[in-house]
Amino acid sequence: MTGAPGELVLAERRGQVLLVTFNRPAKLNAWTDELEDRYFALLDAAEDDPDVCAVVVTGAGRGFCAGADLQRLKAVGEVSEAGRARRRPRDLPRTLRKPLIGAVNGVAAGLGMVEALYCDLRFGSPSARFTTAFAHRGLIAEYGISWLLPRLVGHSRAADLLLSSRMVDAEEAFRIGLLDHLVTTGSVVDAAVAYAAELAERCSPASMATIKSQLSNDADGTYTDSVTRAEDLMLQAFRGSDVVEGLASHLDKRSPNFPSLPVRSSDVPV
Amino acid sequence: MTGAPGELVLAERRGQVLLVTFNRPAKLNAWTDELEDRYFALLDAAEDDPDVCAVVVTGAGRGFCAGADLQRLKAVGEVSEAGRARRRPRDLPRTLRKPLIGAVNGVAAGLGMVEALYCDLRFGSPSARFTTAFAHRGLIAEYGISWLLPRLVGHSRAADLLLSSRMVDAEEAFRIGLLDHLVTTGSVVDAAVAYAAELAERCSPASMATIKSQLSNDADGTYTDSVTRAEDLMLQAFRGSDVVEGLASHLDKRSPNFPSLPVRSSDVPV
Amino acid sequence: MTGAPGELVLAERRGQVLLVTFNRPAKLNAWTDELEDRYFALLDAAEDDPDVCAVVVTGAGRGFCAGADLQRLKAVGEVSEAGRARRRPRDLPRTLRKPLIGAVNGVAAGLGMVEALYCDLRFGSPSARFTTAFAHRGLIAEYGISWLLPRLVGHSRAADLLLSSRMVDAEEAFRIGLLDHLVTTGSVVDAAVAYAAELAERCSPASMATIKSQLSNDADGTYTDSVTRAEDLMLQAFRGSDVVEGLASHLDKRSPNFPSLPVRSSDVPV
Repeated sequence: MTGAPGELVLAERRGQVLLVTFNRPAKLNAWTDELEDRYFALLDAAEDDPDVCAVVVTGAGRGFCAGADLQRLKAVGEVSEAGRARRRPRDLPRTLRKPLIGAVNGVAAGLGMVEALYCDLRFGSPSARFTTAFAHRGLIAEYGISWLLPRLVGHSRAADLLLSSRMVDAEEAFRIGLLDHLVTTGSVVDAAVAYAAELAERCSPASMATIKSQLSNDADGTYTDSVTRAEDLMLQAFRGSDVVEGLASHLDKRSPNFPSLPVRSSDVPV
Repeated sequence: MTGAPGELVLAERRGQVLLVTFNRPAKLNAWTDELEDRYFALLDAAEDDPDVCAVVVTGAGRGFCAGADLQRLKAVGEVSEAGRARRRPRDLPRTLRKPLIGAVNGVAAGLGMVEALYCDLRFGSPSARFTTAFAHRGLIAEYGISWLLPRLVGHSRAADLLLSSRMVDAEEAFRIGLLDHLVTTGSVVDAAVAYAAELAERCSPASMATIKSQLSNDADGTYTDSVTRAEDLMLQAFRGSDVVEGLASHLDKRSPNFPSLPVRSSDVPV
Repeated sequence: MTGAPGELVLAERRGQVLLVTFNRPAKLNAWTDELEDRYFALLDAAEDDPDVCAVVVTGAGRGFCAGADLQRLKAVGEVSEAGRARRRPRDLPRTLRKPLIGAVNGVAAGLGMVEALYCDLRFGSPSARFTTAFAHRGLIAEYGISWLLPRLVGHSRAADLLLSSRMVDAEEAFRIGLLDHLVTTGSVVDAAVAYAAELAERCSPASMATIKSQLSNDADGTYTDSVTRAEDLMLQAFRGSDVVEGLASHLDKRSPNFPSLPVRSSDVPV
């Protein structure tokens, strides 16, 4: 486990999976600028680390993330003005080329819920809970959640959760698509890490990076544009070595041996 | 209860919630121009009434709304031509700044189903039922339902319901997301009013109006535009008083005391 | 049953329903250019056959379609380059004016899953299974699946299935919306044909063609454009005879007698 006991975000390697843990358990891992800096720095390093194939993010203690720290919220007017000047985009987790899996172990509220939604998909324990929280605080739908949530759960379920700020428990979250996997026995972190390890063992890192870029582009675009892009990307894939290894390993009934994702100076389509 | 016994749409205040009831029970509340005029006038008045925070709409008797009245349908060619000249948009319910909650108590067919979908979210009793009805009548997918329905239940479920006009019962409607809440014990109207009263007690009217506008804008727009808009709206929110009251009431563990939504001449972002 | 025993795709008329069966059972109906040619030719003929109102597609034997034949995949680089020159669009099944119902009887993998998604909706047997398969082979999200899948099951479920290539069984497929109907007793083909026969008996072919075009246009467009288009299409419908027959049959409580869809040189809006 990297980092001193008091570190805001812990990082641990489990094989080719990087496990990242928000670590302010006494505050239900409420978000601070320092926590964000550390989290984003870890993701940034993982992006170009050839030994990391996928990332799992969870919270220490009872919560996933209770949202923006109240101390911070009180000054958020200024913080937000300042935030515009930040070079680093707020939603860096969404732009990671490697799979980012949420292991939601407790409450995910406000900005904490947004961070969970920035993951490609979410595992949840029975104590996972979600609340948008914004309308209770006189706030608005922040950081893209009014775009993200309807595309996960449908438009009126999103309206329900955003207007009411009501608490959604794990079972409902799984039923409506806020959680993709509900882990009823054993550790949600172990289950998410096992899933990520399976990605590392069986899936082409280049394929996954391309698929993430396709999903991102196709969320806004037309079907026709999607098909045109897919044609180009398919031809590009066939010029690479992963397809050969993918087919060979399939025919040999063995695990494939795909290369790591190249560092970002490469021409991998993202 | 406002209005004479024979009135086409009843209006009743329950605290800060306006309960609106389609009232042609002998015709399963089939839609007429007069009913629409009365419904829209009630919504229009609610929009600027500082004592109304949210609206619940239901049907009297066994049905929610059986669709366009057949007498009207027979003349609909002319009606539709005339309709283009109407100043008032057909989907006024969708543009309300205050939450509009459907309490679906029986069949919602054709235009009646569309009216249910114009609500932000829907409660349903076990006798709630939906049918698009259009393909059975030689009609097309009217009034935006071919846009709305896929965004509620997914694209192929929408195709299923629109092509077949088959009747969907309350349990299926809840499973696929046509109903957000299935009320199996007690009155669906009471449950919807209780939900709306909770919005009135705990949620900022300005937050809810802004969130509704965000959901509407983000349905068509890009993720990047959504985030940019949210940044502006967040800064705007922090210049108002609701955030202060939202945080103070949270820290004091008491109900917040938010101001009513200003009348429409205001600069509330919608 | 049309066609010799060795034919790649079988065609059988059941009343006004055309049943099409991929017929390479020893290969789990893996896709070849010849199979595609035959399938598309059958759909093309069905399009203008006045006696065909809807099409059901299924697979012979244990599988629906195992994806691109490996022999073909090995040469797919060249095939794909050549594919660009094909006049016929790859997704011809998606553009059919008549309902296309999938009867998924077993595994639908890779391109086989895409073909299932090109259907308007899907029935599945308990042995239906889906895998995107692409990331396991070093491939990308092909033929529009990165656009189609999120709109069927939501964005993070689509990410889950595309990144992991994991196998989804019939129950999960039904729960998340990959299957619209799960047929637990009796034949999935019979159930899909019965559904299609009901469309043929009760629904206006012109209505269904128009609704399909609306769903297709509205997937990318704005709500406002959808409503404007619907207004025009409604007026057009009222100038035709189907509305009269639809209302008359409804009032008479009898089955309607709608005309067949005109051949494609007509001015039916598509």
